[in-house]
Amino acid sequence: MEKDIIALLASIAPADRGAMDAARARQDSLAKPPHSLGKLEDISVKLAGITGQVFNRVGKRRVIIFASDNGIAHEGVASAPQSVTLAQTINFTRGLTGVAVLAKHFGAELDVVDVGIDADFVQPGVCDRKLAHGTRNFAREPAMTREDCVRAMRVGAERAGLAKRQGMDVVGIGEMGIGNTSTSSAVLSVLLNLPAADTVSRGAGINDDAYLRKVRLIDEAIARYAPDPADPVDVIAKVGGFDIAAMCGAFLGAAAQRLPVVIDGFISAVAALCAYRLCPAAAAYMFPSHASREKGYMLAMDAMGLQPMLNLDMRLGEGSGCPIAFEVMAAAESVIRNMATFEEAAINDDYLAEIRPNKRYQGEAE
Amino acid sequence: MEKDIIALLASIAPADRGAMDAARARQDSLAKPPHSLGKLEDISVKLAGITGQVFNRVGKRRVIIFASDNGIAHEGVASAPQSVTLAQTINFTRGLTGVAVLAKHFGAELDVVDVGIDADFVQPGVCDRKLAHGTRNFAREPAMTREDCVRAMRVGAERAGLAKRQGMDVVGIGEMGIGNTSTSSAVLSVLLNLPAADTVSRGAGINDDAYLRKVRLIDEAIARYAPDPADPVDVIAKVGGFDIAAMCGAFLGAAAQRLPVVIDGFISAVAALCAYRLCPAAAAYMFPSHASREKGYMLAMDAMGLQPMLNLDMRLGEGSGCPIAFEVMAAAESVIRNMATFEEAAINDDYLAEIRPNKRYQGEAE
Repeated sequence: MEKDIIALLASIAPADRGAMDAARARQDSLAKPPHSLGKLEDISVKLAGITGQVFNRVGKRRVIIFASDNGIAHEGVASAPQSVTLAQTINFTRGLTGVAVLAKHFGAELDVVDVGIDADFVQPGVCDRKLAHGTRNFAREPAMTREDCVRAMRVGAERAGLAKRQGMDVVGIGEMGIGNTSTSSAVLSVLLNLPAADTVSRGAGINDDAYLRKVRLIDEAIARYAPDPADPVDVIAKVGGFDIAAMCGAFLGAAAQRLPVVIDGFISAVAALCAYRLCPAAAAYMFPSHASREKGYMLAMDAMGLQPMLNLDMRLGEGSGCPIAFEVMAAAESVIRNMATFEEAAINDDYLAEIRPNKRYQGEAE
Repeated sequence: MEKDIIALLASIAPADRGAMDAARARQDSLAKPPHSLGKLEDISVKLAGITGQVFNRVGKRRVIIFASDNGIAHEGVASAPQSVTLAQTINFTRGLTGVAVLAKHFGAELDVVDVGIDADFVQPGVCDRKLAHGTRNFAREPAMTREDCVRAMRVGAERAGLAKRQGMDVVGIGEMGIGNTSTSSAVLSVLLNLPAADTVSRGAGINDDAYLRKVRLIDEAIARYAPDPADPVDVIAKVGGFDIAAMCGAFLGAAAQRLPVVIDGFISAVAALCAYRLCPAAAAYMFPSHASREKGYMLAMDAMGLQPMLNLDMRLGEGSGCPIAFEVMAAAESVIRNMATFEEAAINDDYLAEIRPNKRYQGEAE
């Protein structure tokens, strides 16, 4: 493994158990049945483990979107033409896409990063970290060199570090890249040792022929290149994409920076799983948002022991689930900060004397 | 059936199919794969069916909380003493409980309504619609008369009507009442013809003895009074509570007023099911929020063909899931209103000429 990646992994510390215990104790002291606020409690405890503080902020929010093209798209496995990668990347900056609308609605910034779009262009608001004009077509040759995969991971870690330096309380990790459900299914199949039929969804706007071709191409590529399931860098390099590599680096970088990081949908979940396999401690920093309709999504969640908070049948990608998840996390923080303890909620005899019916309520206007 | 209840049911109109079709067409015209925003799309379509408008507002929000005591609590089936009903009702108005904190966080008002707390008191912010000092203990006699059940339903419909007149865009329906998981399980068991063992959760902070007693008391009461499953009013009167009756009336009232109404957890879901059984068209106005951990919750959802949007393992009640659901509904509205259509999102040749690399991006400060 490359030295700087080894250093990145080594810098990821486990969660702060003391702060988590203190947050759990605070939750247990609040006036409600134990754990009756479920994941809202768990989220506040997890945040405490990340920051070392019982009370946190989910104020400054950013979705980091990695955009790139995938050679496999030339095999007709995607439901949209490759030009959509560029078009939607530009549209992020114009506030027109799903994630852009939701981010604006919930007060989150976007950081749009080109890690490999197959076009030369200059668009304000798109950060140029292009590694190549798309990956190679993994139906014919490995998607990229190991070196390029590591470069993309570095870009991801860099953007997470920038978010931390710029004062973000939380980031979410999204993507844009026609063909990237194919690359994600391929990576997931290797990591979980499953045939492509178990990781490719039928419903993503493609017909039966395209579905069967997609499954066959993935199974064949895995058989041909034999990526090492124990080495996610090898897996992403052979059958993944620049976006997945950068997202994996961003999950690792966020964990290294002790920055809470939200997983979006299927592609984001696969990248998170790569990060988790490289460093299981990184899961302590991850918050899954919504249960994607893509069938591989829950496989990735189960492999990490994570459970999404939203059940919205979404499969848009882009990072579109992250802004909603930020809001749920903010709700969790509001609960631990503002709910009364049993002591504060107790209604004592003095209070009861105050509200006795000598002041009996006489009805309202309505 | 009482005349005014018949009139209420008759006033519930079906959803506006034309507006729903127009909203679906708008969603399909937005730059994303078909239905890739899942429930965010469905919510906007459902709202259109309610209001008759494609674009809506989820701005003014209110959680209506019905508080009352239940005679069955004297059988030791609840995990908290009955005095908690009064204490938490007061704490709603002091901003101290789970729903109060979440409502404040998400900009929702509370309407706290006493429909049967077993105490006389005067508390600003608590609306007095007390029907009695708690219901009777259904282990010994039917919980209330049919007349009182209808009175409680009227109170619920009245509060929904008030919310509409005061300009609310959406309401949520919550409750406070020690013992009301017992009454809700009993009502659900009758409506779905299931033994209490299928509708009572073990985990609600009670021990094995209390659990077994709860199941036995419910089964015995149902056998003794034989409530008519085809008549939810009879069911609520015999084994339900004032809170469930009022909530049922509120769901019906909201539907009659064409006001979107959010279901909270288990008790709210059982009340919604009673409303649905009285008038299936009412389901077109209902938005389930979170999948409660109470085992009966999903039974009620399945019986209505509804699916919750949040998966937070909550079982607090109070209406605590409603404020978060309001926020998801607002997100759905933001999407249909602000996302680009395919036409608007298209990047044409003129635009491409603009962004060509003669202006090649030179890197950023970061």
